[in-house]
Amino acid sequence: MAAEAPAPRAQYDVHRLLAVAVQVFIERGYDGTSMEDLARATGITKSSIYHHVESKEQLLRLALDRALGALFAVTEEVGFTAGPAIDRLRYVLGREVEVLCAELPYVTLLLRVRGNTEIERWALERRREFDRFVRAIVVEAAADGDIRADLSPALVERLAFGMINSITEWYRPGRVDVDDLKTTVVAIIGTGLGGAR
Amino acid sequence: MAAEAPAPRAQYDVHRLLAVAVQVFIERGYDGTSMEDLARATGITKSSIYHHVESKEQLLRLALDRALGALFAVTEEVGFTAGPAIDRLRYVLGREVEVLCAELPYVTLLLRVRGNTEIERWALERRREFDRFVRAIVVEAAADGDIRADLSPALVERLAFGMINSITEWYRPGRVDVDDLKTTVVAIIGTGLGGAR
Repeated sequence: MAAEAPAPRAQYDVHRLLAVAVQVFIERGYDGTSMEDLARATGITKSSIYHHVESKEQLLRLALDRALGALFAVTEEVGFTAGPAIDRLRYVLGREVEVLCAELPYVTLLLRVRGNTEIERWALERRREFDRFVRAIVVEAAADGDIRADLSPALVERLAFGMINSITEWYRPGRVDVDDLKTTVVAIIGTGLGGAR
Repeated sequence: MAAEAPAPRAQYDVHRLLAVAVQVFIERGYDGTSMEDLARATGITKSSIYHHVESKEQLLRLALDRALGALFAVTEEVGFTAGPAIDRLRYVLGREVEVLCAELPYVTLLLRVRGNTEIERWALERRREFDRFVRAIVVEAAADGDIRADLSPALVERLAFGMINSITEWYRPGRVDVDDLKTTVVAIIGTGLGGAR
């Protein structure tokens, strides 16, 4: 991690640059952020930034990729791939709360993306893909009789993630216990859709 | 309603001016909106606007007052004031979904208020007051054994309104049936907190 170089600018690696850039993107909006803004926030020169990344767009892609990577990683965990649909639904909702808290700035940025650039449209498409994954489990759980058959799976999925995503608006690490948050979300959504059983 | 005056500018009354102003506030942000912007959006002159309202601040106050008035009106309805706490909770959640859909732009604006001016701080305080009302019912419902005792009432209230408020991000009149939306929200939150009974 460039430990041999004592100058402050040399302490920057792409991960730290990314962490600062994401904060600036959130505060100023991606469109409203210039490379000058990033240089000011990081305290390193523009050319130093270009030493690490090709463009502002690349920083956005790295940030969104990190958020999406973490969200999608859950879909490959055994809790998501095996067992009754209702249990898999509870699992994915709870794990996404954890991912959101662990990757807070990256997920916050992802949720603000509006599709103005190709990278943003790609991220929106990936989000929709994720939503479809979850919606399919809601449909399955309804077929199993574990979710009320009169509820629209699309609406259930949208409202569930409305609740989960709203956490980005107020959660700050250390103020609320992530396990409590996860338990509460799963208690509300995961057992509140009560079906025939 | 100035029906005697045929000129377009005379067709404006304060309600229509407010409706346009709220859209502009949502699109450009309240701070980023000038009286020139409002004149352009309404198609009437600044002096015509000043004929109706004293200032941009007054438009903000009228808009926030409308949203808060509609939200608080629910707390005086009989469904909110009588019966077991869990039923009152279900009632208020369902009714707030209806209010949000009926007063969409006003509630959307209210939710974006960040407290930069005295009016905005007043609105934030009123919102907190409303949250306290609801939290008190959650506490009561937990004492009745209708909500799991291990859940934090503050977290339950916050997540419930996180879900409800997220509706402003995608709801457009006519695309989704308000009754379906209300039923789904109440099904998820209102029966998902399952207590001892």
